[in-house]
Amino acid sequence: MNDIVSLRINADRYIRMALEEDITSGDISTNCVMPVYQKGQADLICKQDGIIAGLGVFKRVFSMLDKSVSFDMHVNEGDSVKNGELMAVVTGDIRALLSGERTALNFLQRMSGIATYTNSIVKLLEGSKTTLLDTRKTTPNMRIFEKYAVKTGGGSNHRYNLSDGVMLKDNHIGAAGSITKAIQMAKANVSFVHKIEVEVENLDMVREAVEAGADIIMLDNMTPDEMKEAVKIIDGRALTECSGNVTKENIKNIIDTGVDFVSSGALTHSAPILDISLKNLHAV
Amino acid sequence: MNDIVSLRINADRYIRMALEEDITSGDISTNCVMPVYQKGQADLICKQDGIIAGLGVFKRVFSMLDKSVSFDMHVNEGDSVKNGELMAVVTGDIRALLSGERTALNFLQRMSGIATYTNSIVKLLEGSKTTLLDTRKTTPNMRIFEKYAVKTGGGSNHRYNLSDGVMLKDNHIGAAGSITKAIQMAKANVSFVHKIEVEVENLDMVREAVEAGADIIMLDNMTPDEMKEAVKIIDGRALTECSGNVTKENIKNIIDTGVDFVSSGALTHSAPILDISLKNLHAV
Amino acid sequence: MNDIVSLRINADRYIRMALEEDITSGDISTNCVMPVYQKGQADLICKQDGIIAGLGVFKRVFSMLDKSVSFDMHVNEGDSVKNGELMAVVTGDIRALLSGERTALNFLQRMSGIATYTNSIVKLLEGSKTTLLDTRKTTPNMRIFEKYAVKTGGGSNHRYNLSDGVMLKDNHIGAAGSITKAIQMAKANVSFVHKIEVEVENLDMVREAVEAGADIIMLDNMTPDEMKEAVKIIDGRALTECSGNVTKENIKNIIDTGVDFVSSGALTHSAPILDISLKNLHAV
Amino acid sequence: MNDIVSLRINADRYIRMALEEDITSGDISTNCVMPVYQKGQADLICKQDGIIAGLGVFKRVFSMLDKSVSFDMHVNEGDSVKNGELMAVVTGDIRALLSGERTALNFLQRMSGIATYTNSIVKLLEGSKTTLLDTRKTTPNMRIFEKYAVKTGGGSNHRYNLSDGVMLKDNHIGAAGSITKAIQMAKANVSFVHKIEVEVENLDMVREAVEAGADIIMLDNMTPDEMKEAVKIIDGRALTECSGNVTKENIKNIIDTGVDFVSSGALTHSAPILDISLKNLHAV
Amino acid sequence: MNDIVSLRINADRYIRMALEEDITSGDISTNCVMPVYQKGQADLICKQDGIIAGLGVFKRVFSMLDKSVSFDMHVNEGDSVKNGELMAVVTGDIRALLSGERTALNFLQRMSGIATYTNSIVKLLEGSKTTLLDTRKTTPNMRIFEKYAVKTGGGSNHRYNLSDGVMLKDNHIGAAGSITKAIQMAKANVSFVHKIEVEVENLDMVREAVEAGADIIMLDNMTPDEMKEAVKIIDGRALTECSGNVTKENIKNIIDTGVDFVSSGALTHSAPILDISLKNLHAV
Amino acid sequence: MNDIVSLRINADRYIRMALEEDITSGDISTNCVMPVYQKGQADLICKQDGIIAGLGVFKRVFSMLDKSVSFDMHVNEGDSVKNGELMAVVTGDIRALLSGERTALNFLQRMSGIATYTNSIVKLLEGSKTTLLDTRKTTPNMRIFEKYAVKTGGGSNHRYNLSDGVMLKDNHIGAAGSITKAIQMAKANVSFVHKIEVEVENLDMVREAVEAGADIIMLDNMTPDEMKEAVKIIDGRALTECSGNVTKENIKNIIDTGVDFVSSGALTHSAPILDISLKNLHAV
Repeated sequence: MNDIVSLRINADRYIRMALEEDITSGDISTNCVMPVYQKGQADLICKQDGIIAGLGVFKRVFSMLDKSVSFDMHVNEGDSVKNGELMAVVTGDIRALLSGERTALNFLQRMSGIATYTNSIVKLLEGSKTTLLDTRKTTPNMRIFEKYAVKTGGGSNHRYNLSDGVMLKDNHIGAAGSITKAIQMAKANVSFVHKIEVEVENLDMVREAVEAGADIIMLDNMTPDEMKEAVKIIDGRALTECSGNVTKENIKNIIDTGVDFVSSGALTHSAPILDISLKNLHAV
Repeated sequence: MNDIVSLRINADRYIRMALEEDITSGDISTNCVMPVYQKGQADLICKQDGIIAGLGVFKRVFSMLDKSVSFDMHVNEGDSVKNGELMAVVTGDIRALLSGERTALNFLQRMSGIATYTNSIVKLLEGSKTTLLDTRKTTPNMRIFEKYAVKTGGGSNHRYNLSDGVMLKDNHIGAAGSITKAIQMAKANVSFVHKIEVEVENLDMVREAVEAGADIIMLDNMTPDEMKEAVKIIDGRALTECSGNVTKENIKNIIDTGVDFVSSGALTHSAPILDISLKNLHAV
Repeated sequence: MNDIVSLRINADRYIRMALEEDITSGDISTNCVMPVYQKGQADLICKQDGIIAGLGVFKRVFSMLDKSVSFDMHVNEGDSVKNGELMAVVTGDIRALLSGERTALNFLQRMSGIATYTNSIVKLLEGSKTTLLDTRKTTPNMRIFEKYAVKTGGGSNHRYNLSDGVMLKDNHIGAAGSITKAIQMAKANVSFVHKIEVEVENLDMVREAVEAGADIIMLDNMTPDEMKEAVKIIDGRALTECSGNVTKENIKNIIDTGVDFVSSGALTHSAPILDISLKNLHAV
Repeated sequence: MNDIVSLRINADRYIRMALEEDITSGDISTNCVMPVYQKGQADLICKQDGIIAGLGVFKRVFSMLDKSVSFDMHVNEGDSVKNGELMAVVTGDIRALLSGERTALNFLQRMSGIATYTNSIVKLLEGSKTTLLDTRKTTPNMRIFEKYAVKTGGGSNHRYNLSDGVMLKDNHIGAAGSITKAIQMAKANVSFVHKIEVEVENLDMVREAVEAGADIIMLDNMTPDEMKEAVKIIDGRALTECSGNVTKENIKNIIDTGVDFVSSGALTHSAPILDISLKNLHAV
Repeated sequence: MNDIVSLRINADRYIRMALEEDITSGDISTNCVMPVYQKGQADLICKQDGIIAGLGVFKRVFSMLDKSVSFDMHVNEGDSVKNGELMAVVTGDIRALLSGERTALNFLQRMSGIATYTNSIVKLLEGSKTTLLDTRKTTPNMRIFEKYAVKTGGGSNHRYNLSDGVMLKDNHIGAAGSITKAIQMAKANVSFVHKIEVEVENLDMVREAVEAGADIIMLDNMTPDEMKEAVKIIDGRALTECSGNVTKENIKNIIDTGVDFVSSGALTHSAPILDISLKNLHAV
Repeated sequence: MNDIVSLRINADRYIRMALEEDITSGDISTNCVMPVYQKGQADLICKQDGIIAGLGVFKRVFSMLDKSVSFDMHVNEGDSVKNGELMAVVTGDIRALLSGERTALNFLQRMSGIATYTNSIVKLLEGSKTTLLDTRKTTPNMRIFEKYAVKTGGGSNHRYNLSDGVMLKDNHIGAAGSITKAIQMAKANVSFVHKIEVEVENLDMVREAVEAGADIIMLDNMTPDEMKEAVKIIDGRALTECSGNVTKENIKNIIDTGVDFVSSGALTHSAPILDISLKNLHAV
């Protein structure tokens, strides 16, 4: 989201729509008292400790309203920030600052909230060989921003959507007839650039999946002991993933199973925002 | 969102975009094992206690993929639901059920999460004359869904966006010269159908605002005692609002000030989702 | 429409569509004789006395076609202009001037026509306490431009659309059961930032509406004498509006009733354009 | 606009946008009193004598909101209607009728106003060989509806836009070097399916244009006598057009010149609406 | 496509969509190794002899990704180029060059392929009075680019689409009742700026069409001898067109018939691309 | 494209745009002779031997114009068809059949042309272990249709776009510092569901790539002997791909190298269309 290509081609459309959502027929409060251009300046201040993500999007919101807006940045994407820290000074048409403030903060607070929460889980996994993954449980029309925030917070991304990764679940397996047949059909039909992931529920399914050439095996609803046994059976012939709430309490169990990846929907669907504020807006 | 007009004219566009976000070039997993139509059925099951919101949107996701999908509903919008409760049975092309599942649940879980959290705060205010409001701190491109969820949970809506309500903040007041002038300019310029709200920080500002004819006065950063005094000064000549975290601990203080409204950004920006699942998908 | 936020976020989309409507596969006349860039200049001349509105939109049309176009403005938005007056000199790629001319004038002429007509009615009301309002009887997809033109001509705006103002008509009242119930339902359901307007047809309805707490009462199909009586009954407890053709002949009657607002659909649906021309286009 | 192809492919987009313009976040008045489906019925009644145009668009507005809406039509497109005449009965979800009413009427009234005004001019030309034409002086984003209304009123259409007809004006001629060269360049560059029209200001230009093979010659700013002479010079070798206000007073002069076509911008830019109303909306 | 108006108003939309088609969630390869801006340069080299078309579109692709990209052009639109020739040097953010390369070349190669193939047919017709036309057999959503390429290659354009030219085929004639009636209905209904073309299959139809005032007669499925006879019958009273494969072998037959125009769908639906490459991309 | 999800969510948008491209203001020929609904029927007939692809898209074009259109299909997607074969009978509003014919055929002919050409190459590879792949050298805004056609013709798909597959080329390797570093950066940054492909030019690069853990190695510009040696070095530790023209002449060389995949841009950028016609359109 900081690279120009993703910003222009993938993010701009959503940023523009968010502004259109908040301004359907002008900012009526600002219009009534500020009929002409007035240069203004405001401070972007953090009000909680956390990891900052989304500065490029924050800037883009204002640039869409006023091409001449400028930013004096004191922090970088992914930085750890402290409550009270001055993160940036924004200068531009005060009307654009007032009209864009809420939309810019709505993006920045949510993205930073996800980065902050992700980072707290990543720290729990430090030292282990297990990598933290996000899921497709993202807020509708926010995936490009939320998956980026997970990475900024130190997490890794699972597939982006239904089109760029294969996940064969029980219904797919049922429709195909067996795990083996489902994997064969996937290999025959989807592009060879995609790894094939299969969701399994017991050790027999693990054995069939690995024999049939699954690239990734998702261990669903297994006990830690079953997972350990599954990892042993797979023995490096496929990558392994488990899913579930990672907490301080259960983290050791997950690490001990030896799975390569643990995915968590909460990273994107339930992280609270990071409190950030635009303060001291004044004419200059 | 349950009325056909809002669904078709305001919500459909976002629902369609959410599907396009998740399916950029087909559901490659489903396509490889299910080349033809197969009727299927699945159960919508609640996995946490809460308030359900977004059933109309949930249904619309599937209807966009398969016009013949049908729903056997066991609960209604706004109902209180229990962990394990069967909420609906969905019947349609199993390919549409698989491809739409995640997007449908992403909407429903988030909306129900907001309704549930809102309801928990509303209960704290029961018996008082203070009403709970949402804010514009919504997730970008989700406002139509999130504000609806707040209402479904028993809360009330503040202005929808910058175009349908007037809020004069310190910068507007500064640009106008004084509270009195800002209110005069607003009365002269914005449509008379909008009430005029002014944000004030001390009792002198309260007096000026009420004299100048403000319709709503937002008491910002005041102590409970100041707020009580403000409410006394205003004496019914304007509506009063305060903003801030409403918790079991501080609720009595807020109620005791006698303010008409308390607004909370957390309703929409930090409510965790309500866990809901589509289970037992099977061919019929 | 002169403020950058409304122009970029609300108006640009319609301006671009208007150009796409007029140029579906190139300007075939211009393309055949002017294959390369040629700097040109033209004069914007008024051909009727009136009030000018829409200069910002006029300029935007050309800027979309040629980013380097420049304008030497001789008049300002809202100015009274005379037949024959030079209003601006436009300089830019002569191909952009030719291709954009019609679309730019179609906006400017219509907006100025509305401002001019509105202003003629506003003058009739001068000295009275009655304010002139527009309605939702605007040309489809032109509301943002037409409501702005009404204000530029000295009129005031009624609600912008169905989402930012409440108007309870006979059908709403019928569905609710009574005026009192309709107002109660509105107060319970719509955001408190919206004033509630009720349309009434006789003095009993007036009494019920004002008792039930209506903020605005629209006196529909009443005689001047009934309106006077209604205003007396309301006695400042609600704002009053009447609707209808305001003409030199009937203006005194309306003013004498003492209503606060008179709304007129003709401002936007039947104002003739103001004749404006782009002349003397020549290479420079 | 009554044929399904134009309606679906060309008009639907504008109709949908007009609804989105009027309903940005729900019809808040209707939503608060009518939470559920209620079948309703209303009468479409003419309140002025005129020619009706736009019934297909009127119907489409409601069909977009409620697929089950039905219409009992008493008049046909292009019919002459009388003040007080019942034109149609509309039956459907009363919420859709209320929310769509204004948008549907805004289209129908404007289109019928244009058809009515056009028809009044067409009648003045009856018996002559001169045909009435519209221009590109249409309301932005309304061309498809307004040009159709002109035809419904008995007028004919000039080119639709800059892409489907060639009109060489003084600037094109200047850029090319001469009328002859401009016509040659047009014949060499634009598709041979387009007739080539040249705008001329005196009889020498008329001679050059007809010699160079112009298909249509637009006589600009000429006196009736000059026009007569021009028609004589052209002698059927090209079609002739003049432009200007056609009124009862000057109509004989125009007819007497013998020009084939007279175009009038006023048909689309200054026709007042035809007053039409949706009455007696009631539950059924 | 080289003029700014068509590029901005008609082509930009398709160019942007093509980039969105290729980049749905970032260029994941480039993003992982090039996190920051790096200036780069690449050579545009022709790998086959041909006619170049689409340089304006090629440049626009990169400008959309990086506003600061610059081009040192060695050839012009329509130039004949040789295998190995350096056509341009592109300088800009190396990430934009990598992400835009394929889309830019997909446009340029296809457009140049059409120009090259068209030019080879045009050469066969040189010296004759017969002009080569394209058809509506273009690739969906590529018409603006493909018709432009035909012209760049020396061909001429038939009508752009169903809205800017009249072609009465057997079904239209059947619906009208006869050729004469179909032409009369067309003259009465479509704008007089459009020439009327009729498709005929035998000499009786030719006679009827020319008598009824057809502007263009399309000779369908006739032998060369029949066509010669048709041209003789028409005798300059209408333009003539035949359709079909123009090859070295049959070209003399077509020319000998004396038809004014020959149209070929193959120009746009079956021309192979011209091989063009972006080479030597390196940091600078 | 035959599954409802891809059709509705991914293809519909392009199909609608293609109709809008061909019909910018109505089908003026059809409108002038067919003012009302008339049921009609036409035969879809193949005029060349080939493989049929795109029937779902063909049908969708007509369904967008007339919801009641029906199809009597005589062939299935992927079938081998013969010159003269009746493939389907289409029944619906004759105006929709006339207006949609060209767009429907433009899709069907192009898609079938690609399937036919692909199939001819697939047959050359039969019996070998080498699989035929497409590339990203598709026509802009046609990728969803063209990649589907390749599969229908028996080929396989390479990555869909820049977002769903990793391909590290010389510039990526240069930016990273070495093949090893580039692969490490890719593994650290892109989702683990994507295989990592590296483009190499000599045997040293092959060795480094396979050691560094590349999943797929693209052998660029190598002689058949080098490729054989490369395959030997890789020894099953990575998949191998070569690129280039596959012809009857060189096919044995490619197969003999033992590469797993050969990709060909010509499948999508240079396949001629398959000639298909809608005949015998008549009223019923």
